[in-house]
Amino acid sequence: MSLRVLVAGAAAGGGLPQWNCNGSNSAAFWRGSQPFQAATQSCLAVSSNGSDWALLNASPDIRQQIMALPQLQPRDPSRYGLRDTPIRAVLLTNGDIDHVAGLLTLREKQAFDLVTTPVIADVLAQNPIFDALDPQFVTRRTIALDQPFALIDGVTAELFAVPGKVPLYLEGDTVDTEVVGEQTVGVELSDGASSVFYIPGCAAIPDTLAQRLTGAKLVLFDGTLWTDDEMIQQGVGQKTGKRMGHISMSGADGSIAAFENLSVTRKVFVHINNTNPVWRNGPERAEAEAAGWEIAYDGMEIRL
Amino acid sequence: MSLRVLVAGAAAGGGLPQWNCNGSNSAAFWRGSQPFQAATQSCLAVSSNGSDWALLNASPDIRQQIMALPQLQPRDPSRYGLRDTPIRAVLLTNGDIDHVAGLLTLREKQAFDLVTTPVIADVLAQNPIFDALDPQFVTRRTIALDQPFALIDGVTAELFAVPGKVPLYLEGDTVDTEVVGEQTVGVELSDGASSVFYIPGCAAIPDTLAQRLTGAKLVLFDGTLWTDDEMIQQGVGQKTGKRMGHISMSGADGSIAAFENLSVTRKVFVHINNTNPVWRNGPERAEAEAAGWEIAYDGMEIRL
Repeated sequence: MSLRVLVAGAAAGGGLPQWNCNGSNSAAFWRGSQPFQAATQSCLAVSSNGSDWALLNASPDIRQQIMALPQLQPRDPSRYGLRDTPIRAVLLTNGDIDHVAGLLTLREKQAFDLVTTPVIADVLAQNPIFDALDPQFVTRRTIALDQPFALIDGVTAELFAVPGKVPLYLEGDTVDTEVVGEQTVGVELSDGASSVFYIPGCAAIPDTLAQRLTGAKLVLFDGTLWTDDEMIQQGVGQKTGKRMGHISMSGADGSIAAFENLSVTRKVFVHINNTNPVWRNGPERAEAEAAGWEIAYDGMEIRL
Repeated sequence: MSLRVLVAGAAAGGGLPQWNCNGSNSAAFWRGSQPFQAATQSCLAVSSNGSDWALLNASPDIRQQIMALPQLQPRDPSRYGLRDTPIRAVLLTNGDIDHVAGLLTLREKQAFDLVTTPVIADVLAQNPIFDALDPQFVTRRTIALDQPFALIDGVTAELFAVPGKVPLYLEGDTVDTEVVGEQTVGVELSDGASSVFYIPGCAAIPDTLAQRLTGAKLVLFDGTLWTDDEMIQQGVGQKTGKRMGHISMSGADGSIAAFENLSVTRKVFVHINNTNPVWRNGPERAEAEAAGWEIAYDGMEIRL
């Protein structure tokens, strides 16, 4: 028994490549020259006993991810029956499409716990399409912030607010991009002996968050963009990272600098946008690695 | 210029294999013995000029389908720019998850027409999550039944009602499984010279439908189940095909019998459930083929 985390999808919304993107990273795939591995959208799986797993976020690519990862596939029918999954819980860290759309794949009368903050539960409830998750099978658990709870057998979790924003599809005319509340959370996962922090979306690192992470053994953190204006510079979008609710990796107010003195043993970037230069071997990836960061990839597994 | 149809996904809801299914077809994939090709969920692409494509239904697997099919990928950036897709329209034949969930992938400020009946437009409008399709880019067109309209450059379409039911997530306590109206439609596609019928969901074949299809060059038709009680017999579900709004292939009141005297030149089963024995080489597939049917597969392309 040890805490295992499995990166089912290392990419941010859209994945790598993104369906309609000709930016240099995505275009490499469309042109048939693939200098690096493709990546599906943001999902982390966690287990303590290796048999029961929780998904942290349900990406639109979840069916493809399950097909790629034996850990998440139906087990021996002679023991587990004709309908089976090792996925016992799905926890959402925000209401973004890349984190919730996969719920629509996890239908077909399968029992699991759907775990969210009250605010995200409301977002789902406002969309009747999520009634595809039959309440006779799927238990919706709403969890308050800063309260440890049993997530699956052998794994406790605690949700804490991090700066973020409402999902894009709920944005009004003005958007506060650094709300701290139930819209965007980080998760601390523990098996009693070790703990892991998972924070795939985070707009800034205030002192309270820095203190919480200090001395952690493993943090998987928002690696959406390298520079705040990366999408604008590459001509594929008009928004900065700050506008999207994501801190950048580089620069004086970036995550690499913010983590420099936190004494975190192992730091892994996840939720990496297809525009991010760290996908490639190059100076940015070298800089991140020199600062002690790892770049996640689909199928990356870490045991604590 | 000729009408081209491309089966992006040949399977019904859940795909083959289905994420939580240990039925014999799905289990073959989980156990590593794959006697046949996997299949993604229901989507047909159509084009006349080979450059502009319409998708008929947007399956949860659409990102994977685009990655597999060069026809649907972004084109040369020097000519088409940094954001591009040959997908100019998406037409929905009903509101089922396997036909609409992929809309959530087709976001990222990309222009296309979203074409539905008024009833299905209402289903989408009741779910704010579909606002991810920015109305500044995505034009929602509601189309009346039995009226030809321009779908994309070189392709006209006409929607017609076929027997069906409301999507599962909108079912009440009682369900009429053979409603004829805007909930479930078939599509006739034409380039002026040739026409194709696409009917991925259909609960029965009344005389009016039989007459419409008589003498057609190509019909792609609902191949969900081989026998009506197939899911019950295999122990993976409690519903008959009739209860799910799908006519079966075999038997006196099945689709093979109903098509027998319709003089359709080419008949192709699509939207095939993972429980259907026709995926395998065996007596059922042989019987369908002997009756002049083809079994669709992902990537199957037909030119008229």
